[in-house]
Amino acid sequence: MPEAKPTPAPAESPRKFLNASLLDAAQGRMPARAPVWIMRQAGRYLADYRRVRALFPNFLDFCRSPEHVAEVTIQPVDQIGVDAAILFSDILVLLPPMGLQVEFQEKRGPVVANPLRDDAVIAALPDGDLNSELGYVFEGIRLSKKALGNRVPLIGFAGGPFTVASYMVEGGSSKELARLKSLLFSRPEVFTTLIGKLASVTSCYLREQVRQGADVITIMDSWAGYLGPHEYRSLVFPHTRKIIADIKAEFPQVPVVHYANGAPHLLPHFAQLGADVLGLDWRIDLGDALRAYPEQIFQGNLDPCALYASPQQIAARVKALKAEVGGRAHIYNLGHGILPDIPPDHARAFVDAVHEQS
Amino acid sequence: MPEAKPTPAPAESPRKFLNASLLDAAQGRMPARAPVWIMRQAGRYLADYRRVRALFPNFLDFCRSPEHVAEVTIQPVDQIGVDAAILFSDILVLLPPMGLQVEFQEKRGPVVANPLRDDAVIAALPDGDLNSELGYVFEGIRLSKKALGNRVPLIGFAGGPFTVASYMVEGGSSKELARLKSLLFSRPEVFTTLIGKLASVTSCYLREQVRQGADVITIMDSWAGYLGPHEYRSLVFPHTRKIIADIKAEFPQVPVVHYANGAPHLLPHFAQLGADVLGLDWRIDLGDALRAYPEQIFQGNLDPCALYASPQQIAARVKALKAEVGGRAHIYNLGHGILPDIPPDHARAFVDAVHEQS
Repeated sequence: MPEAKPTPAPAESPRKFLNASLLDAAQGRMPARAPVWIMRQAGRYLADYRRVRALFPNFLDFCRSPEHVAEVTIQPVDQIGVDAAILFSDILVLLPPMGLQVEFQEKRGPVVANPLRDDAVIAALPDGDLNSELGYVFEGIRLSKKALGNRVPLIGFAGGPFTVASYMVEGGSSKELARLKSLLFSRPEVFTTLIGKLASVTSCYLREQVRQGADVITIMDSWAGYLGPHEYRSLVFPHTRKIIADIKAEFPQVPVVHYANGAPHLLPHFAQLGADVLGLDWRIDLGDALRAYPEQIFQGNLDPCALYASPQQIAARVKALKAEVGGRAHIYNLGHGILPDIPPDHARAFVDAVHEQS
Repeated sequence: MPEAKPTPAPAESPRKFLNASLLDAAQGRMPARAPVWIMRQAGRYLADYRRVRALFPNFLDFCRSPEHVAEVTIQPVDQIGVDAAILFSDILVLLPPMGLQVEFQEKRGPVVANPLRDDAVIAALPDGDLNSELGYVFEGIRLSKKALGNRVPLIGFAGGPFTVASYMVEGGSSKELARLKSLLFSRPEVFTTLIGKLASVTSCYLREQVRQGADVITIMDSWAGYLGPHEYRSLVFPHTRKIIADIKAEFPQVPVVHYANGAPHLLPHFAQLGADVLGLDWRIDLGDALRAYPEQIFQGNLDPCALYASPQQIAARVKALKAEVGGRAHIYNLGHGILPDIPPDHARAFVDAVHEQS
């Protein structure tokens, strides 16, 4: 645990926000104005982000600087007008506490110096509470909350265990996840050990994020869609469900959002994870999903590439999405992260269209 | 048209094969033994392939050498025991006849020297019959047919127009297809011009493949799954359907297979393309698909990474697939191309398991 915890808000006390539309929608209440945020909203498409990013040759040093984390976390609230901030961090911050060294290279993305290539190393990985090595994340949460005041909620997050495992085993980004899936198909018991440990670490990590101030938790299992339904259900689903159950047991009032990219085939399973909100990528027809799951709150799902179009075209697409949503509570978002070359004006056009047409 | 056409089999004459199980299944007849082939079966996992490949520093020179094409096309029939040969070629052979220069680089894959970045260039692209520049493909078909004799059918193929367009616009492989999708969202009329021209060229190309001897046609629209259902249906589907209708109008007896990777959400649309067979990747539960489409013939759909497991584990997975197929006609295959580091013994174990348990 971090040594000095400056009195976070007690977990059970209601937190009042000037703009609580995202919390309202996440809990199934119709907000006065539809809420919207943007995956990767604190990021490369913003000039002010790039200015801060340029201070750090090493990306993880940036993640480890709570003052700068808080600065970029709130930029999109001020500049784009979104209804929530999401902590600026990375799903791979869990790797060093688990004994894996990772660095972010300009062109290649994350590169793990000692990827998992040995069953004995997997068996010896730590699990449980590794939060004492993640104090910089929690300090970033506290500073972000302070900077936000009571304007909008703060979203904390972690990667889903399958997605984080993919980087640990592949050693970086990968086209097929062939090494991790080879492990899954050849030695499912070793795969299960790895996913189980990651789930345990992630559960402790996310609950501490709530204790330190996160108002909403998102689990980004971005690459779960690489799995077929049988493998997802038997080998990943129970672990993600356990993480969510742990959070809900301790913090029943904190909404949990589950997101996966490229996984329309897994929606029936995601709907049973116990998450309050399911983030959809753009592959799913939102109207179909709403009809198939009449009680489920969804988040999404404009194609990130739609933001290349003109503000007028963007507004027309938002209008079509809103027609599909109809009278349901919904959290508007892109179907995946905003692309780095999107003009900020186009991001604002998306947010404004959601707000204005409510 | 190629100048010298050595008397191909008349299109309407029945072609007799010692092993016609793939044609039987494709046309809904229950073959005595279930048919199986492997996407990318003529390729890097075979030592004899690598020996031939090493003769050509330039990959396209290899594709343009009909004798070597025929040699590697029939290797998996002899060495792995598959029930069909697929012509060794590449979906990007259409680029040079359309005026785009492409080369294959060892690490990066295909790189287009003059990708499409200008609407006027797209407007000026040729369409229609460019077959006179593709004589080497047709010669490869004729030599492959000769080498195969009447053992098994030969599959010809082309890329789907969206997938081929992605390379033409992106300039190579791409993580998001952001340039092509930017075009789609911003200037759909220009996107439609491009897809329409590709469909026209592809239709002529595939029908000539049949005239020269291809017994089955596959359309590989590998990246169609990057599109949401609305965009696929309105902007790609009509063009692919037109290609298939053209083939079926001229050669009603030639089965057409449509394949896309990562597109479980588009299956309802693929089912209306007019294809005889739909190739499924591993993301779709085969039993669910068979139940949802009681009249449809499917191909697939073992996860390519399942071939990393032991021959015994592979046999167990094939057994489970066969239990889902039950009494339906079905073409067994992987859900995507075989990975280059799969041991040939494992590919044989897959094929043998399909055959033995029939």
